Amino acid sequence: MSNQLIQPRTLKGFRDFLPEMMLPREALIEVCKRVYRSYGFAPIDTPTLELFEILTGKGSEETDRQMYHFVDQGERHVGMRFDLTVPLARFVAQHSAQLGMPFKRYHIATVWRGEAPQAGRYREFMQCDFDTIGTTSLTSDIETGLVIIDLMKALGFERFEVRINNRKVLNGFLEKFGLAERATAVLRAIDKLPKVGPKAIETELSEVAKLNLEQTAAVIEMAQLAGEPQLILSQMADLISGNPLGEQGCEELRAMFAAFDELGVGKHVRIDPSIARGLDYYTGTIFETFLLDKPEIGSVCSGGRYDNLAGLFTREQLPGIGASLGLDRLLAAMEMLGMLPAAKTPAQIMIANFRNEDLAHYLRLAALLRQAGFNVEVYPDSKKLGAQFKFADRRGFQGVIVAGPDELQSQQVQLKWLADSSQTLVSIANSGENLINELNAKLNRSGTEVKM
Amino acid sequence: MSNQLIQPRTLKGFRDFLPEMMLPREALIEVCKRVYRSYGFAPIDTPTLELFEILTGKGSEETDRQMYHFVDQGERHVGMRFDLTVPLARFVAQHSAQLGMPFKRYHIATVWRGEAPQAGRYREFMQCDFDTIGTTSLTSDIETGLVIIDLMKALGFERFEVRINNRKVLNGFLEKFGLAERATAVLRAIDKLPKVGPKAIETELSEVAKLNLEQTAAVIEMAQLAGEPQLILSQMADLISGNPLGEQGCEELRAMFAAFDELGVGKHVRIDPSIARGLDYYTGTIFETFLLDKPEIGSVCSGGRYDNLAGLFTREQLPGIGASLGLDRLLAAMEMLGMLPAAKTPAQIMIANFRNEDLAHYLRLAALLRQAGFNVEVYPDSKKLGAQFKFADRRGFQGVIVAGPDELQSQQVQLKWLADSSQTLVSIANSGENLINELNAKLNRSGTEVKM
Repeated sequence: MSNQLIQPRTLKGFRDFLPEMMLPREALIEVCKRVYRSYGFAPIDTPTLELFEILTGKGSEETDRQMYHFVDQGERHVGMRFDLTVPLARFVAQHSAQLGMPFKRYHIATVWRGEAPQAGRYREFMQCDFDTIGTTSLTSDIETGLVIIDLMKALGFERFEVRINNRKVLNGFLEKFGLAERATAVLRAIDKLPKVGPKAIETELSEVAKLNLEQTAAVIEMAQLAGEPQLILSQMADLISGNPLGEQGCEELRAMFAAFDELGVGKHVRIDPSIARGLDYYTGTIFETFLLDKPEIGSVCSGGRYDNLAGLFTREQLPGIGASLGLDRLLAAMEMLGMLPAAKTPAQIMIANFRNEDLAHYLRLAALLRQAGFNVEVYPDSKKLGAQFKFADRRGFQGVIVAGPDELQSQQVQLKWLADSSQTLVSIANSGENLINELNAKLNRSGTEVKM
Repeated sequence: MSNQLIQPRTLKGFRDFLPEMMLPREALIEVCKRVYRSYGFAPIDTPTLELFEILTGKGSEETDRQMYHFVDQGERHVGMRFDLTVPLARFVAQHSAQLGMPFKRYHIATVWRGEAPQAGRYREFMQCDFDTIGTTSLTSDIETGLVIIDLMKALGFERFEVRINNRKVLNGFLEKFGLAERATAVLRAIDKLPKVGPKAIETELSEVAKLNLEQTAAVIEMAQLAGEPQLILSQMADLISGNPLGEQGCEELRAMFAAFDELGVGKHVRIDPSIARGLDYYTGTIFETFLLDKPEIGSVCSGGRYDNLAGLFTREQLPGIGASLGLDRLLAAMEMLGMLPAAKTPAQIMIANFRNEDLAHYLRLAALLRQAGFNVEVYPDSKKLGAQFKFADRRGFQGVIVAGPDELQSQQVQLKWLADSSQTLVSIANSGENLINELNAKLNRSGTEVKM
């Protein structure tokens, strides 16, 4: 061709997912769905494009600036969703009668933000949210914690910690000590204390934020609460005693942690008085989740309780609670921790193409193995076996089946296992019974178990 | 709140997916993934936004006009993908060294076209493509047919038909009879013949398209080929005899249908000489798939072989073959055929909240049932049981578990089955063994089977 080629490339801040990245991503999403569904959360989806006025209704200046928006063919000002919360609010307001309350949904979908790209941050990324709408029952707060714990375990983590706080405690505390106007400075100080120590915080609070002695002491005491839930709760109760909102927050934390203990998941949760998660949105329980072997990557699952999801769209009061799994962050951590397999194919087995005349035999054998639950690829061309084995090795197949005409004649195949370079002659008589058993043994799974 | 509400609504041509629509959609996508993977197709993903020049490189004027495109914050002219083929071409050209050939991928993703909305057509829809790139082997043509057959069966269809033709036969035919310049008129006539009959076609061909007698007779003979593959193939061979391209196409069809017969799937495939699938793109085998009980909705899975996927982006010749499942069309058909369940929840079982004091019991029982593979929702509030049952019924749970304090004391629960209004007192001693057996029996599954 004589025409000029177009250079194939992706936009800055965007990326392709090759099979070796996509396979673990899909596996992770499947685990999320399985866990969400096991609690009765149902999937929903909303359009990528929404009216600009709907997306900006609640947004901060920052999200508005980052949003991809344009005027469409019908002269409508539209935007690409930048999170799944605004679409959820619009969705629930629009369909609440049909949905019925309480309504539990999960939504796993792509969002876009035109922010400056940096290491590990993309302009297109996936969110993985679950929420319970329409109830103020603490059952849902407890359950949200249980979902996070089940999620982390199902993903293969044992060493993680769900850190929990309650905005009622924080707000009650600010109220009691007359600090509501200086909430930002106080929350920042509480957040920084573990890193910079109480002396630096004391100076900042008294000299910059102009807190008096009693206020400064109280903030430092709050920020230093640590230890077992029972201990923190009793000190917290002393600190906010007399403030009804704070006392209610304490009581909620107490009930939640009692339930976690009764359910045997106490070791995965702790009270963290330093968590605030912004000032505006959350009104009760708040969650963050840290990998104990990778705390520096930040929270991998965060969320909390809110009083009113959809005030912009409906007068109906819609309280709820939910959390969002940081899919990309978690995948990055799993890669660093060596938890991801390196294969570029979902198939375990390749059947070599010894000669085209026997193609029907290969295809029939492949069908048999698929019925037994294996993923099997038949090499399409009758290239030299060396080239086929090289392909199989690079692609990440675990076993290669080779069957020449003599072997097929006697209903046998060679099973070459790439990990240990072993080679076995296996019968394929009786619907491949021996071969299926051999493969099950090599892949270390029982015949009934279903692969991930 | 005194502020003006924003009316919650979606854009014209876009739609929300509520749980009752999303549950079957997710189930269908999972089946597709399972079947694709079982043949070694690996997942990939590409960005939603691409440079406008990349998306328009190959597009027709129509797709260019329908594309959502705009200038982004960085002054780049970008567009939202309108299919998965152009992104695949760009992707393979960009990564071919890393991917290795042959490369088998599936891509299940959303695309956007700003076309005039009409019944059942949306501006945002999902495509579900699979392709084998980098080989001209007929193995891949046969396998593409097998994937389609497995897909349809896995989705629960028995009455379907994969109609197959070969562009080499059509092109050879046009060549032999000197009709290459009038291909459009000829293909349209072949396509229309079953509906309007040979007389009308004869008139159109001779009077409008100015074909001579021999040409007209040949086109009508080609369009009327029907019956068993062997019969069609012998008549087809006579018709194109002497034209090497056409003879090669015939031979390919013969080898494919021989393999289908040997693999026992002959009843699901037939040769259809009237299929052309456009003039430009396909160069060999072409597929369309029809539901025998809903032929009027058109092909639900179409595709074919092409010589060169990515000529716009690379000088590397990349032949391939693939097909695309019409997800939305198939879902609509399954709904019309009563193949979709009506539930609004992925959970089978609801545990009623008899009183908040026993919450830990409910949560523990729910955890036990989840471990046994059931999806279970605990009702969050201790509302009146009547209201909880009404909720369970509307939401589509199959069973409700009620346990008052006396029952819990004696390690028992009431299992109320909504379909038949039966109620059974079941022991939950021994880690809920009896209850699990009872639920397995009622849900008609074995303990080891995994639910869809």
